[in-house]
Amino acid sequence: SPSDFVSRVLGNAPPPQTWNATLLSSANFPALNTMGLSFGRADLGVGAVIPLHYHPRASELSFIMEGVVELGFVDSSNVLFAQTLQQGDVMIVPKGMLHYLYNPGTSRATVLASFGSQSPGIFPAGLGVFGSGIRDEVIAASLGGLDHATVEALKAKFKPRS
Amino acid sequence: SPSDFVSRVLGNAPPPQTWNATLLSSANFPALNTMGLSFGRADLGVGAVIPLHYHPRASELSFIMEGVVELGFVDSSNVLFAQTLQQGDVMIVPKGMLHYLYNPGTSRATVLASFGSQSPGIFPAGLGVFGSGIRDEVIAASLGGLDHATVEALKAKFKPRS
Amino acid sequence: SPSDFVSRVLGNAPPPQTWNATLLSSANFPALNTMGLSFGRADLGVGAVIPLHYHPRASELSFIMEGVVELGFVDSSNVLFAQTLQQGDVMIVPKGMLHYLYNPGTSRATVLASFGSQSPGIFPAGLGVFGSGIRDEVIAASLGGLDHATVEALKAKFKPRS
Amino acid sequence: SPSDFVSRVLGNAPPPQTWNATLLSSANFPALNTMGLSFGRADLGVGAVIPLHYHPRASELSFIMEGVVELGFVDSSNVLFAQTLQQGDVMIVPKGMLHYLYNPGTSRATVLASFGSQSPGIFPAGLGVFGSGIRDEVIAASLGGLDHATVEALKAKFKPRS
Amino acid sequence: SPSDFVSRVLGNAPPPQTWNATLLSSANFPALNTMGLSFGRADLGVGAVIPLHYHPRASELSFIMEGVVELGFVDSSNVLFAQTLQQGDVMIVPKGMLHYLYNPGTSRATVLASFGSQSPGIFPAGLGVFGSGIRDEVIAASLGGLDHATVEALKAKFKPRS
Amino acid sequence: SPSDFVSRVLGNAPPPQTWNATLLSSANFPALNTMGLSFGRADLGVGAVIPLHYHPRASELSFIMEGVVELGFVDSSNVLFAQTLQQGDVMIVPKGMLHYLYNPGTSRATVLASFGSQSPGIFPAGLGVFGSGIRDEVIAASLGGLDHATVEALKAKFKPRS
Repeated sequence: SPSDFVSRVLGNAPPPQTWNATLLSSANFPALNTMGLSFGRADLGVGAVIPLHYHPRASELSFIMEGVVELGFVDSSNVLFAQTLQQGDVMIVPKGMLHYLYNPGTSRATVLASFGSQSPGIFPAGLGVFGSGIRDEVIAASLGGLDHATVEALKAKFKPRS
Repeated sequence: SPSDFVSRVLGNAPPPQTWNATLLSSANFPALNTMGLSFGRADLGVGAVIPLHYHPRASELSFIMEGVVELGFVDSSNVLFAQTLQQGDVMIVPKGMLHYLYNPGTSRATVLASFGSQSPGIFPAGLGVFGSGIRDEVIAASLGGLDHATVEALKAKFKPRS
Repeated sequence: SPSDFVSRVLGNAPPPQTWNATLLSSANFPALNTMGLSFGRADLGVGAVIPLHYHPRASELSFIMEGVVELGFVDSSNVLFAQTLQQGDVMIVPKGMLHYLYNPGTSRATVLASFGSQSPGIFPAGLGVFGSGIRDEVIAASLGGLDHATVEALKAKFKPRS
Repeated sequence: SPSDFVSRVLGNAPPPQTWNATLLSSANFPALNTMGLSFGRADLGVGAVIPLHYHPRASELSFIMEGVVELGFVDSSNVLFAQTLQQGDVMIVPKGMLHYLYNPGTSRATVLASFGSQSPGIFPAGLGVFGSGIRDEVIAASLGGLDHATVEALKAKFKPRS
Repeated sequence: SPSDFVSRVLGNAPPPQTWNATLLSSANFPALNTMGLSFGRADLGVGAVIPLHYHPRASELSFIMEGVVELGFVDSSNVLFAQTLQQGDVMIVPKGMLHYLYNPGTSRATVLASFGSQSPGIFPAGLGVFGSGIRDEVIAASLGGLDHATVEALKAKFKPRS
Repeated sequence: SPSDFVSRVLGNAPPPQTWNATLLSSANFPALNTMGLSFGRADLGVGAVIPLHYHPRASELSFIMEGVVELGFVDSSNVLFAQTLQQGDVMIVPKGMLHYLYNPGTSRATVLASFGSQSPGIFPAGLGVFGSGIRDEVIAASLGGLDHATVEALKAKFKPRS
């Protein structure tokens, strides 16, 4: 029916303490199946950071609906592309590139994100590395020979998984 | 450079008399090449209609940023899917389906549109049928045997092509 | 079984008063599933017009098996590509472009059409605009401000939907 | 220009002694680039055989324009799908499957072939095995331990490559 | 579960009399579904030939793990690309091209093969031509007018199908 | 020429102190262009770890050529899939998933990796997070509120980029 093509999820964003984000993908909005795109909204309080993450199956285009946002991504040559974006600006993050959003402004910021896949996936770097049960030796070796105590301390931060 | 991934085009929408729309595609924003998506913004004054058109190479997802919008599309079985959308609502138009937007509200409306291709294309139905020089017999036959005078009158409306 | 790969539908074209067309797609010929192509046949009586339509999901290649055919399509820059084709000629219509066929000759014409998708879809412009229940204001605005009476007259022509 | 979308190559088929075939692909009809399809015509004299071959990059759909044709293909489980086709019949050959056409009738036969790629490729089995310079041991081992003399005799048949 | 992503099939290659080959595809290793790749191993005794065959749905990359291998493929212009490969060498066979492997060395050879599809398919040329029941006239015509007796002799070699 | 399809890069692996890895992609082996696959080799000394990384554009299949390897990946639901693999075993890592390899054995290990893209890309997690110049606040927030000193200490480890 016509209303299958409509979603009202994104309009109800509570005022964020820190940040919150909602993604409409084929998992929660079946009309997106075979459409080749998905869409999300993120709200960031003053100073909030959406942690480093990547989308394994889609490029992303972010539109700043309100406020100021610093958006940064690292490409596969390890170069950082960071930009301060104002209301109305648009920035692209190529598929699979690690990125973050940060609100350096003095008021709430809202970002709308388009993805070129109905199932982009979200991979949060910190949770993936420290909260998934990877053994200490591997994490240590991946972080330049980090000491055991720091690895354990970092793992502790991600213990109560959300 | 990092700024290649940023566009500031969409933020400067003049107050619309009737409507205006801007599309960021690989044609005017080269960073979109190979990204598989594009993005646009449309503003509609009270009562304005964005005429019937379709995008031959992409599905579309519309997000209502402000105001009220009636969005309707016709599928390839000739069924109309029309919905009245409020701020925050999202609606999908499958690839190649004819559609329009109409502002039935009492204030300006703004819509953000995501496309699942960097080059979605825009095909306006009225201009394509009446403003491209197709011979009268063909138009008449395509419109149920329309009389010559009406075809000519309609062609005249599209003469000064924009 | 071997006969699953065979269809005999296209061979039985009755002599057309005006025109008739048959499409073999995955909907009526399941062996086409995953093959990435479909095929059709159109027969046009003298002076007949196959009305303006487009295929949202495939490019088309037309081969003139018999007679003379004018084939025209409008691209997304609103340029008309119209050509008079003789027996044995081939012409291409890119994906999603609006097009028509017209028999300007003195005898029946037959066209074979190949599509680069097993499910090309057919969208008839007149029926889609006037026969799908789109509200008058939208149609009027899409046709350069057409008057109410003419819109209603055109809608009436498409009332008994086939 | 409009005529770039037209080819007149297929209309001029000389009466075949045995058989001849013409393929319109992006190599000789540049308008097919990015269209995802190609098209060809084959004419077979009485008793003629178009030798075993396959198309590495496309499925094929054959339409019998005139005469009677036996079309057979072997799938990757080594099962033969052979059918006798009359005027108007259509048969599909999946991508990469070995196939042949044979005219078992009493008059010339004409087949039109659609391909789901602008560059389907043609690989003739006999020429590929015996006319490309593959060493005898390999051919012998590929043919169940065929003796040297027969391999050489077969190679000789393909020496003057066309 | 994690072990769904693991296969132990390829490690147990018996010493080959002539040759043996194992392919891990989505048919026998379901975790490959949607992954877009598959993998195989072939072992060749001294002087062994893996007969002429092609993969209709994937390009192949061969890595020589042990021994010496002559790998040859014929492209669609009928040009033979044959190379003698040593341990550690890699060679590519484009999608759908006819190819063989031959061990010209003095010890067993082992080849690992990667495919760019989870379902590459295998089409053995000799078995396909002579063991699938194609009628003699077609085979004869495909092989330069081969005599009936030789066609029958070749068919006999492929009678007990494996 | 035939030798364009051959690479000899992978055969010359020096005995690893810790580990080394070589990737053949379209960047250094042009014949891989349009083939849809690439291939690499990794050698790990006893106890060596190939640090956490992911490939943004391809699924991977690893084959254990020699030794014992623990291969682990984290999926986008933050579940760890870790397996100890013996010689001859194969394991798959879906596109974009974070993973590592570790040699828990008593001798050198060698892994061959197939990728379902000619340009899979490599994104090392540690280097990407700490060695690309991302500001401390973002890293701290991405790691559960890590203190400034530890972030700086970790950044220092990645200063002299390799």
